[in-house]
Amino acid sequence: MAEIFLALVHHPVVDRNGRIITSAITSLDLHDLARSSRTYGVRAFYVVHPVPEQREFARSVLDHWRIGYGRSFDSRRVEALDLIEVVAGLDEAVAAAERATGRRPEIVHTSAREARGMSFAAMRERMAEEDAAPVLILLGTGFGLAPAAREQADLALEAIRGVGDYNHLSVRAAASIILDRLRGR
Amino acid sequence: MAEIFLALVHHPVVDRNGRIITSAITSLDLHDLARSSRTYGVRAFYVVHPVPEQREFARSVLDHWRIGYGRSFDSRRVEALDLIEVVAGLDEAVAAAERATGRRPEIVHTSAREARGMSFAAMRERMAEEDAAPVLILLGTGFGLAPAAREQADLALEAIRGVGDYNHLSVRAAASIILDRLRGR
Repeated sequence: MAEIFLALVHHPVVDRNGRIITSAITSLDLHDLARSSRTYGVRAFYVVHPVPEQREFARSVLDHWRIGYGRSFDSRRVEALDLIEVVAGLDEAVAAAERATGRRPEIVHTSAREARGMSFAAMRERMAEEDAAPVLILLGTGFGLAPAAREQADLALEAIRGVGDYNHLSVRAAASIILDRLRGR
Repeated sequence: MAEIFLALVHHPVVDRNGRIITSAITSLDLHDLARSSRTYGVRAFYVVHPVPEQREFARSVLDHWRIGYGRSFDSRRVEALDLIEVVAGLDEAVAAAERATGRRPEIVHTSAREARGMSFAAMRERMAEEDAAPVLILLGTGFGLAPAAREQADLALEAIRGVGDYNHLSVRAAASIILDRLRGR
């Protein structure tokens, strides 16, 4: 079974007009994605941000829950947040996943605009193989990953489709659906 | 095909200690669940709260996006939020769904603690039948729906399972996974 790593990318992503931006870290993304990660057996969840102050903010959210009052208040939350590692860039996430598993992870791009991409069924099957390489799934904030992130990926997953043309899911919803399709029972 | 309605319930729900509480409406729940609802063809998304001031708050969030600056800023967001109806209780949600479809909806309970419950596969099949009744899916905020909500339901869905014992998903993640399992492609 392939081990799964998630990376929530805040740069380079695009805004509603397709411009390259750096988005802000939100504490809710950390909580929601950590809980989904923990539920689906994700090995580590990387929060990727190039700005030191933003990484500090993320660490302060984690410390609140890991160390202080929060720890005694809600242990299930801590158990999830313990999966988070705050890193400056994608390279750092790849290196950390490689250190954890001894193998370079396959970098998997996700996008609501992906027209081709590997099907979830094919990806799930591939990940179920005995000697499957770990996968690092990239999730874009804002209006999605910038083209530069696509170029760093080894493969792309098909877009999540609902029942019509509308597919403007939040990153929190999209990530949980992706994990469920790849590893849910 | 059964039409789907969602109800996000803020009372009666339980806190971490199992006590019955009334939780607060958060604007993020409205946005995330509306976007997931729109993606999966949900007919209406009811925000259920017994406190008038809380319903007013929800309406003010909607008005911001439907009427003012928000409307021109992000039309995809408006398209999703248009699915929301703010109601005082579950009875009102049931009546609204009945008015919209001409049939009383089946009330479907969801819980992370449901040990038995109908499987997602069976529910999906049932909903795909030609003359299937509409379904109203209850989602609990806080630490989940109170027993009283269970008693009002016609049937219960099995809990979402990941890979281990941990299943402390956010309501935003759980709702999107439920919709994807019942209606995703």
